[in-house]
Amino acid sequence: MYYFTSDYTEGGHPELLRALTETNMEQTSGYGIDPYCEKATALIKADCKREDIDVHFFVGGTQTNLNIICAALRPFQGVYGAVPSHINTHEAGAIERTGHKVLELPAPDGKLYADQIEKAYLLYHNDPNREHWVQPKMVYISQPTEIGSMYQKKELEALHAVCKKYGMYLFIDGARLGYALTAPDNDTTMADIANNCDVFCIGGTKCGALFGEAAVIINPAIKPDFRSIMKQGGAVLAKGRLLGVQFATLFTDNLYYKICQHGIDCAMEIKAALTKKGIKFLTDSTTNQQFPIFTKEQAEIFSKDFVLAPWEAVDDTHMAFRICTGWATSKKEVIKLIALIDKL
Amino acid sequence: MYYFTSDYTEGGHPELLRALTETNMEQTSGYGIDPYCEKATALIKADCKREDIDVHFFVGGTQTNLNIICAALRPFQGVYGAVPSHINTHEAGAIERTGHKVLELPAPDGKLYADQIEKAYLLYHNDPNREHWVQPKMVYISQPTEIGSMYQKKELEALHAVCKKYGMYLFIDGARLGYALTAPDNDTTMADIANNCDVFCIGGTKCGALFGEAAVIINPAIKPDFRSIMKQGGAVLAKGRLLGVQFATLFTDNLYYKICQHGIDCAMEIKAALTKKGIKFLTDSTTNQQFPIFTKEQAEIFSKDFVLAPWEAVDDTHMAFRICTGWATSKKEVIKLIALIDKL
Amino acid sequence: MYYFTSDYTEGGHPELLRALTETNMEQTSGYGIDPYCEKATALIKADCKREDIDVHFFVGGTQTNLNIICAALRPFQGVYGAVPSHINTHEAGAIERTGHKVLELPAPDGKLYADQIEKAYLLYHNDPNREHWVQPKMVYISQPTEIGSMYQKKELEALHAVCKKYGMYLFIDGARLGYALTAPDNDTTMADIANNCDVFCIGGTKCGALFGEAAVIINPAIKPDFRSIMKQGGAVLAKGRLLGVQFATLFTDNLYYKICQHGIDCAMEIKAALTKKGIKFLTDSTTNQQFPIFTKEQAEIFSKDFVLAPWEAVDDTHMAFRICTGWATSKKEVIKLIALIDKL
Amino acid sequence: MYYFTSDYTEGGHPELLRALTETNMEQTSGYGIDPYCEKATALIKADCKREDIDVHFFVGGTQTNLNIICAALRPFQGVYGAVPSHINTHEAGAIERTGHKVLELPAPDGKLYADQIEKAYLLYHNDPNREHWVQPKMVYISQPTEIGSMYQKKELEALHAVCKKYGMYLFIDGARLGYALTAPDNDTTMADIANNCDVFCIGGTKCGALFGEAAVIINPAIKPDFRSIMKQGGAVLAKGRLLGVQFATLFTDNLYYKICQHGIDCAMEIKAALTKKGIKFLTDSTTNQQFPIFTKEQAEIFSKDFVLAPWEAVDDTHMAFRICTGWATSKKEVIKLIALIDKL
Repeated sequence: MYYFTSDYTEGGHPELLRALTETNMEQTSGYGIDPYCEKATALIKADCKREDIDVHFFVGGTQTNLNIICAALRPFQGVYGAVPSHINTHEAGAIERTGHKVLELPAPDGKLYADQIEKAYLLYHNDPNREHWVQPKMVYISQPTEIGSMYQKKELEALHAVCKKYGMYLFIDGARLGYALTAPDNDTTMADIANNCDVFCIGGTKCGALFGEAAVIINPAIKPDFRSIMKQGGAVLAKGRLLGVQFATLFTDNLYYKICQHGIDCAMEIKAALTKKGIKFLTDSTTNQQFPIFTKEQAEIFSKDFVLAPWEAVDDTHMAFRICTGWATSKKEVIKLIALIDKL
Repeated sequence: MYYFTSDYTEGGHPELLRALTETNMEQTSGYGIDPYCEKATALIKADCKREDIDVHFFVGGTQTNLNIICAALRPFQGVYGAVPSHINTHEAGAIERTGHKVLELPAPDGKLYADQIEKAYLLYHNDPNREHWVQPKMVYISQPTEIGSMYQKKELEALHAVCKKYGMYLFIDGARLGYALTAPDNDTTMADIANNCDVFCIGGTKCGALFGEAAVIINPAIKPDFRSIMKQGGAVLAKGRLLGVQFATLFTDNLYYKICQHGIDCAMEIKAALTKKGIKFLTDSTTNQQFPIFTKEQAEIFSKDFVLAPWEAVDDTHMAFRICTGWATSKKEVIKLIALIDKL
Repeated sequence: MYYFTSDYTEGGHPELLRALTETNMEQTSGYGIDPYCEKATALIKADCKREDIDVHFFVGGTQTNLNIICAALRPFQGVYGAVPSHINTHEAGAIERTGHKVLELPAPDGKLYADQIEKAYLLYHNDPNREHWVQPKMVYISQPTEIGSMYQKKELEALHAVCKKYGMYLFIDGARLGYALTAPDNDTTMADIANNCDVFCIGGTKCGALFGEAAVIINPAIKPDFRSIMKQGGAVLAKGRLLGVQFATLFTDNLYYKICQHGIDCAMEIKAALTKKGIKFLTDSTTNQQFPIFTKEQAEIFSKDFVLAPWEAVDDTHMAFRICTGWATSKKEVIKLIALIDKL
Repeated sequence: MYYFTSDYTEGGHPELLRALTETNMEQTSGYGIDPYCEKATALIKADCKREDIDVHFFVGGTQTNLNIICAALRPFQGVYGAVPSHINTHEAGAIERTGHKVLELPAPDGKLYADQIEKAYLLYHNDPNREHWVQPKMVYISQPTEIGSMYQKKELEALHAVCKKYGMYLFIDGARLGYALTAPDNDTTMADIANNCDVFCIGGTKCGALFGEAAVIINPAIKPDFRSIMKQGGAVLAKGRLLGVQFATLFTDNLYYKICQHGIDCAMEIKAALTKKGIKFLTDSTTNQQFPIFTKEQAEIFSKDFVLAPWEAVDDTHMAFRICTGWATSKKEVIKLIALIDKL
């Protein structure tokens, strides 16, 4: 049985495990103050083509999100997020436990748009009783989104512009960033991301690392005492160099991009096969998550060899499934899956 | 200039001020442990026709809501609330600062319905990854709602039944409860309220008190250490008897109902005059808040003598206004207002 | 039976009640945006001899403390407080629920001292792992202290200087400020208080008001969005003018000082009588709280006519009691109490 | 240069790395629902000789502490901790950000005692105004303590008894538990730990794992929805099996005990050498942390080859250092260090 259910079913890329093994018995200081974190930071800064940014390494995504938001917002401030956004749905109320409201905005394609943000902000801003409202201070988006869609560079620029206009931060959650930057219709670089937001994170967990997210802070207002926020949040890894070693390896010789490209290639082949068969999709995704809609009979065909993730009922007879590929996806299994698709 | 903008523009009912003045130099213990709070509690229990309930006195509404929710929920639990509900819009994120998510539900008429709650809950409950979601544990409704509509007894029973079925609490915010219980189409008593929820509050601030809300706890699970929650939340009034004196006065000789009935009578007369003139309303309200829709020209007519509260733009040429009456509304001014309405 | 147990056993000063009654049926806007709050603010600014300060009105003390601290500190920052300080002992963990650590410092006489603060701060500051510690950002003191002692002007200046030196705020809790400013050995004015701290509050509840504390913010860093913090904390009174009316009355014609002076005079007479009889005190207090130490037999003598507050056991045969006077203390009862003391 | 500064300077035990490498490309479900976590849980239950306990795997210690406390306490409840305890000093206010007060108790030898707890609790309990205090609900101790001392079985039994007597939880932080259970004067087993507390954790990070702490919940009151608390706290590792694989390896063939025994043996040899030379210690430690007191000249002798951790100044001419050994300590370097000690 092979799982196409998510991009975190395996451990880490063998290169990273090798680097961890090679450096295993070295002695370093703890808590992320070590040469490997330093090296990883330098490599990420180089990829962003900026020196004036701070880089911090986290173990997981919810941890990253809640601590960034904790560092950036005052208690009465909230963060705009799409209805299906990770912070609004799949973090068990982590942002609220941190004290902040996620200000839900509808997002049929998973994305937020600049004019939508402006309209929502002005509704708040123009209310004479706005002191009684949560003050919007941040916009949270995921690149790619939770349902596989993706922002084009222009869209990011417009979002960042509207945030700056109204004194808000733009936070880009890049838990799957590698799969956006290698998507066929991608027009942004890591440097573009860095130049068009206030803070973002580079996902490791879903992109080749055993675990790890790199938070990149661009806006100086979010930088002070960030490590204190992390420590207080239980988010500073004792042997921090484990994160440094992994990110240094990922950002050496373009490994991050190469292995994510593999995930994308697998997804595009599957998508093409499905499309050829006239299968409809929940959303049009050019990234590593595909959401085909199957009848019960169609789904049955795959169930002997593969596990796909049931996503949502579309109607009485159709169900959308998530097919998720990644750096670890077996090419052989993709071929087997496509052979089944061809029989639909 | 006379204000019809809200039901808290004046101080308190003269009877309450007189009671406060008469008892002013008496010495009592602080923090709500005094004969007046005891008496008010007994009177409220009598009105609820139940002895097995706890009564606590708060100064204000947001304070009441946040401390009730704080006492009732564990950190990962959230509360369903209508999109326009007070906790979701006008408390500056008080519930989130307390650590809890308000789980927004659409409510065109301001009300939540039992089947809507069940459907929302099952979406959560049937998700195998529900550990990643906020756990719904409470349903918050306002009686009457923020836009003047009202629950019938059957609706409350249905809501309470669905809450019990799924292990959730029903919390009724009665900031304007007096104006629901005296509305022309009301079919519930205070006892019905008490018997159909887990916790509710009886609004004083908008119903004749200088300030004060009485929280009534029915469900034994919410009772333990409630005063510790209040104290920690900065919500225990040092001279607690000020609340006791006021509520004891309100619940003696039906004063609470009599003075709220006055507010309702004024509202109904205004409503009738508007209806006669073919004025449309934002919602059909039988309580003390009316939301007529005026053209600019119509609104202009009132503006020399009265202040109405602009509520929301309906279209390019029409705006809904709130006309709010209450225990303190001047009958003379109502007559003057109606005279203007008749000229529309 | 007459109570000398606290300074909040009665209601409010008759002048304040009269002002509330006179203004009762006036219509004003809510939430502290009204002419009375404006007037009270102007009077307090005049008393502070400064225009560049913000004034906000709260209902109670714990509420005031938690919201000031919430507004001033970031999540990882803490506040130095004396072991017996109110925030460390009698607020049920309000500061911790707000997310902040009270950094306890020993205070045998209830006071914190500048050199003690500097030493504690440097212990933190000089630790290379200080990121793992709570960052001290505020010093909280009470004037007068919880056990009746008082800071002299020089001591406040020294504390403020050390705070400024290390980037910390000095917060003076003046829940009983009126009884410090009228104490026989007092050498500070309201303006001195304002000039020697970053934020302070002027107690109303224990000094003649039915309820109410005025928070005065001097440091511009604490000012922005303070009302949002208050609103979110459930600390904005709907009919805010009730606070404005009371503080405006208290700060007209020196009423605040005159009525507190009465409380002090009563306390000093009682102290003198006790001292004459050789009674020892827990601390030397020149304010309205006296802590005489009695044997069981001595305490017995008072118990038929008076209630004193048992404070703490001093040894197997002696117990310290609190005798608390105030604006409302009956001169006649003081004379009766002294008559009993004279018989000891 | 060799570091004796801490027990987390290296990566993980080679057996664990090997197990991670071997299982690396296997596909499993995420979030700790996988066969490896299941196996590790079974092995820990077997070591505790109890089936009625819950086991959850965390990445780090602060994370473990804050989430256990978050799950166990209601908002107004606090936790007793020694002044030098980890939660009181080195977690940057994590417990306070979670909303709870650490109720400091003095602990010259790092340990809390049953009679001390009882006395402190009764002080709270006997206060008629205890609603104004933080309610003590948990006792937090570390085994071994932060300064190397250790509880004997009788002491744990007494602590647990007093906790049960007053309705409090006993939480044992075993971040270095392996070094207590293998100490020369240890008289407890893992089962004894489990039988004498309500919740405890087994440290992996300092005892052979790359990272990881196993929380073991004995008291049924702390079990419900614990995973929701973890998820909300950002403490559920996506590839949870990484923790399962490591703990399963540690608890197979007594690896955990064998490798910690090595750390203890190294420490005891160093301690013996120091003792022979008449060197004094800050505390008498039988675990893997030793705190010898050196003159500047003595410290100088080690500084060319070794880094010891400066701990605290004892007087003007003496400084206590921490020498920390562990599973990874090089026997060869211990011999070199002892050779230098012998020259003192």
